[in-house]
Amino acid sequence: MTDLQKTPRTTLRRRAQRGSYDRQLAYAILDEALVCHVGFVHEGQPLVLPMAYARDDDTLLLHGAAGNHMLRLLTGGAPLCVTVTLIDGLVLARSAFHHSMNYRSLMLFGHAAAITEPQAKRRAMVALVEHVARGRSADVRPSSDAELQGTAVLSLRIDEGSIKARSGPPVDDVADLALSCWAGVVPTTLRPGIPLPSPDLPSSIPLPSYLQPYRRNDAYSPGD
Amino acid sequence: MTDLQKTPRTTLRRRAQRGSYDRQLAYAILDEALVCHVGFVHEGQPLVLPMAYARDDDTLLLHGAAGNHMLRLLTGGAPLCVTVTLIDGLVLARSAFHHSMNYRSLMLFGHAAAITEPQAKRRAMVALVEHVARGRSADVRPSSDAELQGTAVLSLRIDEGSIKARSGPPVDDVADLALSCWAGVVPTTLRPGIPLPSPDLPSSIPLPSYLQPYRRNDAYSPGD
Repeated sequence: MTDLQKTPRTTLRRRAQRGSYDRQLAYAILDEALVCHVGFVHEGQPLVLPMAYARDDDTLLLHGAAGNHMLRLLTGGAPLCVTVTLIDGLVLARSAFHHSMNYRSLMLFGHAAAITEPQAKRRAMVALVEHVARGRSADVRPSSDAELQGTAVLSLRIDEGSIKARSGPPVDDVADLALSCWAGVVPTTLRPGIPLPSPDLPSSIPLPSYLQPYRRNDAYSPGD
Repeated sequence: MTDLQKTPRTTLRRRAQRGSYDRQLAYAILDEALVCHVGFVHEGQPLVLPMAYARDDDTLLLHGAAGNHMLRLLTGGAPLCVTVTLIDGLVLARSAFHHSMNYRSLMLFGHAAAITEPQAKRRAMVALVEHVARGRSADVRPSSDAELQGTAVLSLRIDEGSIKARSGPPVDDVADLALSCWAGVVPTTLRPGIPLPSPDLPSSIPLPSYLQPYRRNDAYSPGD
């Protein structure tokens, strides 16, 4: 598996020890997170939009209403920066200065291309549903031709980018270690709660097995 | 309390019913989230950086190492877009097409100014610590003069911006309501786990009360 592409704009300057170009780690971040933040420039102004996404092998998939003004700007060949961030914990040091966060963040650069071929679009819609609930696409009504036509699907090659991550306990100054101040990490993770059936759902329809809490970070034992 | 400023670039076009300019809601999003995504333009290229932040009344505070190349770009008067997104749930409809997410997202525009006056910087550092764990700033060693000098603190007025949010169950086509497919919402929330003491923490130092799970979304009953 080849690394992400290291270019001048993806070369990490600060705290390079927190950086990586590991493609497997990039995929793990993309597969765990739910939302990316898409940055692009419109008339000199940066815009950062939160968007759902999916990964299909080495391709990031975005989608939205075909009439969406923002999406049209994205497919016009504009350079993009897509950032995906997982918050893994609060790092509480003995000094204000050394407070930090544990996180994994992927930043990708590139251009988006519109996917227009119906079968490829259909496959993308399946990937987008599967990304939020693996197994669900087999249960739902697939997109109709009219729905596909009303949906713009964009692809971005996962190629040029970098990862920045921090993990582990706080790093305090030696002189602060004697302070009588609790220090450590409060782990954080985005956790699913109990599924809430739609008010219009007949009670005879059971919760499918794939909707038991679908994503769990076993590295942590969440407290109540 | 005045609304956020509605300008051409903050006027919502798509699904305006999901939009708002309510300042109180903007503050609630800022106070609950931990990370913002800061977008700016460097040599024509958009960059989106995840950053910790804090809110001090109507001001958003950012910080980083004074030598940080990116931070220097931010204070040079470059137009910024700062987006903060909370993921509240997966919206699972009977059709692939109507799948969605529940979320609250704030997008702010403006320019960052460097805070250089030592007392204001000190106050910002306190706010940044308090944002992740309310009550903690009284426990920790405050920033030294040297640490303050090594830290760049930026402020952005919370003024021009907009909110987009979705909540509630999926909205299915009437023709799909008879399908034998579970539909509803899987709520999601960023939850704290059991605090992990630093390996170098003496066992005689107890966990402070403010580090019991510090942030809880009581709207949901998270499942295990």
